[in-house]
Order: sequence, then C-alpha cells, then structure tokens
Amino acid sequence: MTRIDDLPVRDELRGKSPYGAPQLDVPVRLNVNESPYPMPEQLVRRIAERVSDAARTLNRYPDRDAVVLRTQLADYLTRTTGHRLGPNQIWAANGSNEILQQLLQAFGGPGRTALGFDPSYSMHPLISRGTGTGWISGPRTAEFDIDTEAAVAAIHEHRPDVVFVCSPNNPTGTAVSPETVLALYEAAQAASGGPGALVVVDEAYAEFSHRPSLLSLIEGRPTLVISRTMSKAFGAAGLRLGYLAADPAVVDAVQLVRLPYHLSAVTQATAHAALEFSDTLLGYVEELKAERDRLVVELRVLGCEVTESDANFVQFGRFADPHDVWQRLLDHGVLVRDNGVPGRLRVTAGTRQENDAFLDAVRAVMKENNE
Amino acid sequence: MTRIDDLPVRDELRGKSPYGAPQLDVPVRLNVNESPYPMPEQLVRRIAERVSDAARTLNRYPDRDAVVLRTQLADYLTRTTGHRLGPNQIWAANGSNEILQQLLQAFGGPGRTALGFDPSYSMHPLISRGTGTGWISGPRTAEFDIDTEAAVAAIHEHRPDVVFVCSPNNPTGTAVSPETVLALYEAAQAASGGPGALVVVDEAYAEFSHRPSLLSLIEGRPTLVISRTMSKAFGAAGLRLGYLAADPAVVDAVQLVRLPYHLSAVTQATAHAALEFSDTLLGYVEELKAERDRLVVELRVLGCEVTESDANFVQFGRFADPHDVWQRLLDHGVLVRDNGVPGRLRVTAGTRQENDAFLDAVRAVMKENNE
Repeated sequence: MTRIDDLPVRDELRGKSPYGAPQLDVPVRLNVNESPYPMPEQLVRRIAERVSDAARTLNRYPDRDAVVLRTQLADYLTRTTGHRLGPNQIWAANGSNEILQQLLQAFGGPGRTALGFDPSYSMHPLISRGTGTGWISGPRTAEFDIDTEAAVAAIHEHRPDVVFVCSPNNPTGTAVSPETVLALYEAAQAASGGPGALVVVDEAYAEFSHRPSLLSLIEGRPTLVISRTMSKAFGAAGLRLGYLAADPAVVDAVQLVRLPYHLSAVTQATAHAALEFSDTLLGYVEELKAERDRLVVELRVLGCEVTESDANFVQFGRFADPHDVWQRLLDHGVLVRDNGVPGRLRVTAGTRQENDAFLDAVRAVMKENNE
Repeated sequence: MTRIDDLPVRDELRGKSPYGAPQLDVPVRLNVNESPYPMPEQLVRRIAERVSDAARTLNRYPDRDAVVLRTQLADYLTRTTGHRLGPNQIWAANGSNEILQQLLQAFGGPGRTALGFDPSYSMHPLISRGTGTGWISGPRTAEFDIDTEAAVAAIHEHRPDVVFVCSPNNPTGTAVSPETVLALYEAAQAASGGPGALVVVDEAYAEFSHRPSLLSLIEGRPTLVISRTMSKAFGAAGLRLGYLAADPAVVDAVQLVRLPYHLSAVTQATAHAALEFSDTLLGYVEELKAERDRLVVELRVLGCEVTESDANFVQFGRFADPHDVWQRLLDHGVLVRDNGVPGRLRVTAGTRQENDAFLDAVRAVMKENNE
C-alpha cells in the first residue's frame, strides 16, 4: 500500500493529518458552532423553487461574478448595520475559508507573512500555510482579549503583510473594540514601507454580538476587509457561503486569483432563497443569544470559569485535563469541542433542551471530579 | 478611487486582468464548451427533491468527505470505463479547477514547477501561478500532438514536480495515446531523484473521445492522476463538480490541503441527482459527438484547416487575423472562442440548429473575405 510519504508531496505536509473536528453521531452535538434549528419548511420550499429554476439551465456556466447574490448581500449588510454598501464592495465564495484563501493568495503568499492573535480561528494559520504565507502568532491577554499596546508592538516588530482580527473571536467568544481595530489598522499602515498591510476582520459571528458590527470602519480605509459567513447567523453551515465587504479595489484584486466560476448556480440560488428569509433566520439568532447568555450564567453557577461571549458559543474551564472532561461529556451523549486552549473547552449554544442536557452533563462530570 | 495597484497586492498581480471568456448575450453561444441541452425536466424535479432533503438539515455542516458522492462517482467510472474503482480512489471538489488547485498545493507550490504542453487548458499555468508553482511550457507539434520524444526530453531537462497532460486537449481537441502517457510517466519517475513527479491527465472531455479513457493506467502507478468534471459530459457546467481518480494515497494527500467542508450539501445533493440520470445525459453526448464529427467535415468542405477532435469542440482556421473573424462571427450572432492559438478559433458543438447557424456564419464571413 502506498502511503502519503511515498508520494512527492511537499515536505511540510509529511506526517500531517487533515484538519477537522470529529464528525460523530451523538444525541447532542454542540461542537462546531452550527445552528440547532433546521431550515423552516417554507424556506426549504423556496430553495427547491430557486434551485429548480437554476437547474433548468445548469448546462450553462453560472454568473461568474455572482452579481445578483452580491447585491442581496450588500442589501442585507446595509439593512442590518445601517452602513450603506453596493455590490461592488462585496465578494462571495464557498465559505469564508475560501474568502480568506483568496485574500491570502492576493495579499499574502510566498515571501509574505500573516499575523493573528492566538488562540483564534485555527484556519487562519492553516490557510496561511496552504497559500505559502508565513504565520506569526501574536499575543492575547490571560483573559483572551487583544491588548492594543502589545498588539501594535507585534505589528511594528514583525511587519506582517496581512493582519487577522477575529471579532467575536473563535474559540474564546471575545469581541474586539473599534478603537483597537483602528489602532491595529494604523500600525499596519505605518509598519509597512508601502501601501500598508491588509487588515482582515473576521466577523463570522458578528450577528451574535452584544456590540455593533465593525463594518462601518471600512469607509475610507481601502486595506480594511470584513469577512462574513452564512454558516452561523443564517444557520446554513451546509451551504458554504462566505463573503467579504471592502473597498471595490479589494474586490477587483481577489478576482485576479479566484478560480473562474468558483460559485455554482445551485449555491447562488440557495443563498438567494436564504437571504429572502433573513428576518426569520435572525429571529433564531435572538433565541440563541439568550441561550448563550444563559449558558454563561449557569456554567458560572456550576463553578466554571467562563469567558464573556459575543458569539454563539461559550468557552469554559478551567480543567486540569480538558480532554478527559471532553471525553466524559461525550460519554454522557454531549459533544463539545476541545480547541487545544489550555484548561478550556468550547460549547455551542444549542436549543434550550440541548443546553439543559449539556449543563446536566457538566454537573455530573464535576460531581464525579469531586468524588 | 482606489485602484488595485494602490493596494499591497503581490507584485506579480499588478497590471493583470481576471481570467475568463466574455459572458455575452448572443443567440448562438458556442464559446465555452457548454452542453447546449438544458437539464431534462425529470432530472430538474429529482434535483429539487434531493436538494430539499439536504436543505432541511442545512444548519449542519455537509459530509466533509463526501463519501456517498465519491461512491457514486466511483461506480460511474467503473461502469463507463470497465476499470473497477472504490470511493477511496476518488476525490471531488468545486470544479476540476479546484481539484487541480488542491493537487498543486500538495505536490507543487513555492520552489516547485509544473510542466504542460502548450497550447493547452489555460487554467493549468494560471492555477500553477496562483499556488506559487513555477510554470514550464513544453512543446507540441505543428499538428498540436505531443511528440513523445520531445516531451520526454523536456521532462528530463526541466525535472518538473507536476506534469499536465490534457487529453482530449483543450483548445485543440487532440487526444493523447496511452503509450505517450506511459512514456511521460516513466520520464517523470526517472527525472526526479525522489519518488517521481505527479502526472495529471486532465480528462475533462474524455466522454467525447473516439478513444477509451486513460483511467486504467492509474493501476499500480501511484503518481498518475486522472481529473474529470461533470461540466461537459453531464452538461452541468453550472454545478461546478470536478473529481479525480488516483491511488488512495493521493486522495489522502489532497485532504491535507483542501479547505474543510469545501463541498456544500447542496452541490453534493445536485451531483447525486445528476449521476442518477447519467444514462440520459450520456445519450446527449452521443448526439454531440455526431455533431462534432459533422462540424469537422463541413468546415473542411468550406475550406478551413481543421484539427482532428476528440472533444465537444473543434479548432479551425487558418485565419490571417483570427480575432477579426471572431468579431465578424459575433456580428452574425455566433459567439466562438479565440484562445490565442495563432491563426485558429475554437467552436463548441451545439445543437444541429446552432451548428447550422455557425456554419452559415462561417460561410458568410469567408465569402466576405474573398470579395
């Protein structure tokens, strides 16, 4: 049998394993920040209608520039943030992972570096490496915040070409203030000799935040990019639709590296239908925010140390052996995530019933711990 | 207004334009090798059913490894080529462009090179550059064949890490013999000091060929990969579903670089439905092969120089100014493709009516030329 290492793969891939949380069949799945709500049946019918229309002409390539979809995404952002945007400021791709990959292909790549503040979304360093971009791990405080002064110093020291700011931050739940983002943007401009580094604010979880979106900061700042996804607030992880908002020149730049016709007609049609139901879907977001806040309170009552959360998940601990706690929660039928943050685990806010089951499991595990 | 060049983009992107044929609204579109046949209404209904099922649980991430779809693709290849394959020998992605990008991320990339035989599919060099892989342009004969001896010499001279062989070749239509592929494979093994270069046979147009697929050559050759697409033979360009067949170790290797959950639940469901209708869709292929053969004959009757074609398109010429002929065909309502091959244009085989309209337009343009 041939193994990967017998093949002429790149040296840095030798001995590596594919990224991804285990996909286990468990009663309560609170591990990958999915929405617990199935799509409403009315929306399922609307998707079937729009996909049927698209399917009739599936012999033709899709709209390469996804203009209709980008117009709707611009309208959605304008409506929910109050910041007026046009389709020329929006780009869409197969999940925000592909958005980030395209940004790194255009602004990172061989001989360039990206800097992020760890712990953060683990795909930032992985996509950086996948595009040949060097990765620099910047600092966070013990409370998982970004210390503006330390962060600015890191940018001045390392002069990265791309800076990632995840807000609300995955896996900690921490939001970043506009003042901090502006300070990082200024530092990214100043540290570079040329037109400045690109600052990418990953707002995958923005709709769950107690704070307003950072979207309006892109005004007059052509190297500030906001990335978003329909996986979380739209409860559409299976759709794989990510997007960005930025200066039209950034949208032009990613079109130089995107694979032509990257976004299928079926994906565009399904996203279109989901955007028509955004009010309904944002109603679910309100329910999940309340459940998220309840999880924070209840976990503290149970004696856990809990990080403030602006996302649809909660980081909790501290555990001497988080992986052991992860396994024992799984034995109770509840799947959470061990992101490798020392002493911590992450739980996605599910339905009230799922969260109760999770809290019961935590209670049981902590009782076992004390016995 | 900010322009791309004001941004900190990579130097090699400065002054570039996005790849892609013009998407023009013209009566007869024979420019991008799409099938002229809309999906049959029965299949549209089946797609709606399968997508509805997928849409109900769209809140969950898709099957990351697309196991059901890969099993069906393996069955399709087994049935149509007689070469028995399992799902562990198949990988699928958003178009064969993404397949090629993943292969280059794993086996090409910075400090490595890929070699192809030009003129060939223009995305091979573009995706190479997009992944930081150096591009080497290998030779073809004046008849657009691969001269085995010259090709082997090019591999020995340049020692590439990846070799692209497009068969049938886009944009010329030329098929490559198994003997030539084996000679290139042997050279790719021998030229390298280590485990050999990866040889990627791009069979996007295989179903239209007069010759059998080269698929069976992967047996016992772990660095030989066949890439395929549902855009052409399945008439599903809008679906964006590409796949590869290779040794299971190659499938393991691309999983190290693929973006997690790259293939949406909606894409998987639609592809599943199309595969259930493969007999119907392959019936259209037979009609298109007959039309393609008719185009070759009729264009020769009109006095054109025509390259033998094993694909769903025909390369024809010679013209002193192919771009002028392209424009004048467009003035007659027929859109073909100027791929930049000196003296030549490329026309996709459409319906009988479309091909007649094209032939009438060629006749008119050649008459103008002689006046």
